[in-house]
Amino acid sequence: MKLTEDQKKEIKEQQSQKNVTKRVTSPELEKILYEALPVLDHGFVRVVDYMGDDTSIVQAARVSYGKGTKKVSTDSGLIKYLMRHRHSTPFEMCEIKYHIKLPIFVARQWIRHRTANVNEYSARYSILDKEFYIPDKQHLAAQSENNRQGRGNLINGKQADEILNLLKEDAKRNYDDYEKMLNQKYDGTVIDENKQGLARELARMNLTLNAYTQWYWKTDLLNLLNFLSLRADSHAQYEIRAYADVMIDSLKRWVPLAYESFMDYRVGAMELSSKGKSVVKKMMKGEKCTHEDSGLSKREWNELMGSLGLKENLL
Amino acid sequence: MKLTEDQKKEIKEQQSQKNVTKRVTSPELEKILYEALPVLDHGFVRVVDYMGDDTSIVQAARVSYGKGTKKVSTDSGLIKYLMRHRHSTPFEMCEIKYHIKLPIFVARQWIRHRTANVNEYSARYSILDKEFYIPDKQHLAAQSENNRQGRGNLINGKQADEILNLLKEDAKRNYDDYEKMLNQKYDGTVIDENKQGLARELARMNLTLNAYTQWYWKTDLLNLLNFLSLRADSHAQYEIRAYADVMIDSLKRWVPLAYESFMDYRVGAMELSSKGKSVVKKMMKGEKCTHEDSGLSKREWNELMGSLGLKENLL
Amino acid sequence: MKLTEDQKKEIKEQQSQKNVTKRVTSPELEKILYEALPVLDHGFVRVVDYMGDDTSIVQAARVSYGKGTKKVSTDSGLIKYLMRHRHSTPFEMCEIKYHIKLPIFVARQWIRHRTANVNEYSARYSILDKEFYIPDKQHLAAQSENNRQGRGNLINGKQADEILNLLKEDAKRNYDDYEKMLNQKYDGTVIDENKQGLARELARMNLTLNAYTQWYWKTDLLNLLNFLSLRADSHAQYEIRAYADVMIDSLKRWVPLAYESFMDYRVGAMELSSKGKSVVKKMMKGEKCTHEDSGLSKREWNELMGSLGLKENLL
Amino acid sequence: MKLTEDQKKEIKEQQSQKNVTKRVTSPELEKILYEALPVLDHGFVRVVDYMGDDTSIVQAARVSYGKGTKKVSTDSGLIKYLMRHRHSTPFEMCEIKYHIKLPIFVARQWIRHRTANVNEYSARYSILDKEFYIPDKQHLAAQSENNRQGRGNLINGKQADEILNLLKEDAKRNYDDYEKMLNQKYDGTVIDENKQGLARELARMNLTLNAYTQWYWKTDLLNLLNFLSLRADSHAQYEIRAYADVMIDSLKRWVPLAYESFMDYRVGAMELSSKGKSVVKKMMKGEKCTHEDSGLSKREWNELMGSLGLKENLL
Repeated sequence: MKLTEDQKKEIKEQQSQKNVTKRVTSPELEKILYEALPVLDHGFVRVVDYMGDDTSIVQAARVSYGKGTKKVSTDSGLIKYLMRHRHSTPFEMCEIKYHIKLPIFVARQWIRHRTANVNEYSARYSILDKEFYIPDKQHLAAQSENNRQGRGNLINGKQADEILNLLKEDAKRNYDDYEKMLNQKYDGTVIDENKQGLARELARMNLTLNAYTQWYWKTDLLNLLNFLSLRADSHAQYEIRAYADVMIDSLKRWVPLAYESFMDYRVGAMELSSKGKSVVKKMMKGEKCTHEDSGLSKREWNELMGSLGLKENLL
Repeated sequence: MKLTEDQKKEIKEQQSQKNVTKRVTSPELEKILYEALPVLDHGFVRVVDYMGDDTSIVQAARVSYGKGTKKVSTDSGLIKYLMRHRHSTPFEMCEIKYHIKLPIFVARQWIRHRTANVNEYSARYSILDKEFYIPDKQHLAAQSENNRQGRGNLINGKQADEILNLLKEDAKRNYDDYEKMLNQKYDGTVIDENKQGLARELARMNLTLNAYTQWYWKTDLLNLLNFLSLRADSHAQYEIRAYADVMIDSLKRWVPLAYESFMDYRVGAMELSSKGKSVVKKMMKGEKCTHEDSGLSKREWNELMGSLGLKENLL
Repeated sequence: MKLTEDQKKEIKEQQSQKNVTKRVTSPELEKILYEALPVLDHGFVRVVDYMGDDTSIVQAARVSYGKGTKKVSTDSGLIKYLMRHRHSTPFEMCEIKYHIKLPIFVARQWIRHRTANVNEYSARYSILDKEFYIPDKQHLAAQSENNRQGRGNLINGKQADEILNLLKEDAKRNYDDYEKMLNQKYDGTVIDENKQGLARELARMNLTLNAYTQWYWKTDLLNLLNFLSLRADSHAQYEIRAYADVMIDSLKRWVPLAYESFMDYRVGAMELSSKGKSVVKKMMKGEKCTHEDSGLSKREWNELMGSLGLKENLL
Repeated sequence: MKLTEDQKKEIKEQQSQKNVTKRVTSPELEKILYEALPVLDHGFVRVVDYMGDDTSIVQAARVSYGKGTKKVSTDSGLIKYLMRHRHSTPFEMCEIKYHIKLPIFVARQWIRHRTANVNEYSARYSILDKEFYIPDKQHLAAQSENNRQGRGNLINGKQADEILNLLKEDAKRNYDDYEKMLNQKYDGTVIDENKQGLARELARMNLTLNAYTQWYWKTDLLNLLNFLSLRADSHAQYEIRAYADVMIDSLKRWVPLAYESFMDYRVGAMELSSKGKSVVKKMMKGEKCTHEDSGLSKREWNELMGSLGLKENLL
């Protein structure tokens, strides 16, 4: 990731602010505020604003429950309780805003999380940067054979080189042709003074889905947790997970108690269906329990045994 | 409005904070942060947190439009442009959180604004305060005769006294009976040691709709403006308008440029329908235009003439 | 529940429709369409419109996954898969609309589910019905001693009678005074021709929270399931659960396959936290596992053992 | 637009349904139900389901206003009133579902309307169609010189040919390379039996933004109107407007009364700011009013005079 001189200057100015406020602050998050944390080859995540901290969750819960919450002795205990019982509204009382640079195909997955506020760079107004995502070789995987939306073995050697070449060349050529149609280089230089440039809103359609865009993305803590539990998960595509992983670090700095509960009750947790619960109950009592009388499909049985680390029971 | 000693102490502690932050701050809003601004007889509005200021709107717009926004010379000009053309997303980049004490029947109107985060005091958990809204005599109006949801003339004299008496006595008696059923006074004293109290979630149903509740209410600037344009409007019920009016003052402190645009393009604005536009066009050219050939209903015609201050044209 | 003659007539007319459509229909749901299913003493639930059925979920999933879904052989298997993996969007493709009559204190809990469309009877415009919820004796419970938002033992005998009397008398008196202030009976009769009535928007504040209101409530299947999983749960207040239970029956008629998956993967399911999972894993292997080395709080330990039916392990 | 044999068969089957329902139906909309209405070169719009009609709006309003609405004599009058006064919730009581095929860059604009349910074809699961949007010559416009997000003059002759060639060749080459990376043709043929194909979730990034995707898109009438008022507007990009225009026709069939109000009060309407209103008032009285004393910026003045058809007043 390279920042332009303008960007570096802007970040420096933002970071040099020393404002006095009566609002709660999150000292660990302040340390990385505005910083461009690199993701993938040209992307970044920057926390650019936030509101509230762990105490804001507690404060909201105490308003709801009134004097009733005094019994729970600690903030940590209360946050754990709220997370465990999926009380959602107190977590909505904290808000965070990110500035993110990301490939368009990642942005298309991301935007499906609707409960967020977004301002995206508009290619109707302005010319997109000349940057495209090209995967590292270590992420160049074949289609998984048993998971229609997953990756299988790595692709190596000559085939890997060929693929990377195609990706690079196609993205570059399409960007060059984008400039040609615009009759303008990215830096603003007009190519041919005697020609008009195609409307930007049209020319952009020639770009590839690995071109980088950027946006401001603002959401409350509850929806951030929903986003992270789906996108920092092993089933998520690596390229969006790379963003989620960096954001989890910002979560830890911002609201350390909520982070801890989140890791325990959401990230590391599992669900047992009604039938799955029966299986577990039987097995805990030492009763015999086979796939046949479990009522589970083969797939469900394997998912359950896998989650419980009972490899010997896999079908 | 009276605050308890606990509340006064909490507010004092919150206001004495002097935290250093790299975030933008809104100095005029900081001045009233946490303060309980009185509304109606026992209600209040407190700004308890916020994120962003006028520059956050501008910053979001500049991310969207890229280099394209450099032409617009000032922040004020850009915010006006965004408001005029109903660009919504940049206004979503600011967030504010209020602590509000309000009668339940007002809360029921308020909650219809769905795009907000709410934590309300729960009468399942705790006992509600012994406070009810009783209107001032100056707001005790008769049902409007031509507007099914409006107020007409003031009700005076003996009838006014009778009404206020009924409101006071009924609210008080119902609260007393609420305590009786709970077998507990508001201050926690048990009434009869040999009895169990009715479950709070049941006893609360005896309260009247003018009992006060409280909540944390957090929303983004766009939705705050939507709320205020509906609720600070003359068609809104006086009791919710009283809250909106106090909140408009906090808006002015927080984002003075957005406030100014809002007053010009939303609060003081009017809409012309397609047919209404034709009428205005004709009249501006000095052409004759009557209700008959306007295509407007009588009601629409009167609304239009009223808005344009042409009383002589009212039917 | 009593319906007025007008209501009966309207329902009969609606039910006598025989329209031909190319849309999918849900035959079992059609059988009860428009019918007023009684809930509590004066409330009802009516399904008044719907869109889609089980095949609509499947169809949406097949659009998403393209040819990839052909492998999953059956609609039932696919819906189970979607429910198990918390795929949410295909369930949003079905929509249902209810007409519901319910006490105001129930409406206040209900409205917290924001992702729904609502048109509520407005007491600014019109006079509310003279009907209040009075609990059956079998639901008149004392405050729970160990759960701040729950019910404990039943209240019997004289105390029960006293409570029911208070509820009835206070609701009735407040309604009578409401009419007095309006200077109008519910049926429209003016009380005193020489007086003006108080504005309806003001008079309504004298009503109690057990007065009945009504609304149209429309939501998609996903949000209906979220509502039902929270409100048909044993932790929900009985009065809202009574509605959820009736609605679960309409769910079963409407989308029987989704209903079945919902019961297995949501209603009857449980979550294991990361620490809870470790405990279960150990116990399944026959290893000893005590509260002390589980890392769980006493409360969590008891919740876990309770859910797994291991009463002997309760602390 | 060409449909596959499978698609044609599916549509025929759907259209041959004759189900009997007690729900309201919209006869004019039924006539085109499921039909693929062509948009752009390969796109389409299909209405695949709906709920409610004009009477559903009226019914919801009558629930809200109770007996208060009886005065307004007609459905048409009531719907006009609701539209004029921006009453929003009754319009949320109708729902519609579309199946849409559209270029990815159009989908990216569209998805910004958050209050809708979406199931999009997933290029993680399946291979995208070999179809790209190539504009007609009559829409191949140069960048506007005075509007940063608009189109100016048409581009003609040789330059137009060059641009169209670039668009076609780049899209085609990138698709061919997509197949190469997947080691699979669109029709499923494996290219080289000795190679693994790149994971679909990676290969897709090589596609251009004019590749076609498809989705189910479901929304309520209120949000459909918001979408249409923004996207059927002359400021919208032609390519999304083409979709909105076809959808406006389905609106007219579905809810003809709401459609009529929408055209009058939204599409053909204009807003007057507070200052703009003063200008209009003065001019209607025949008073002189110049830009200097209007308080409007030059841009605002011109927008106002333009909207009112007073070209002679443009600065």
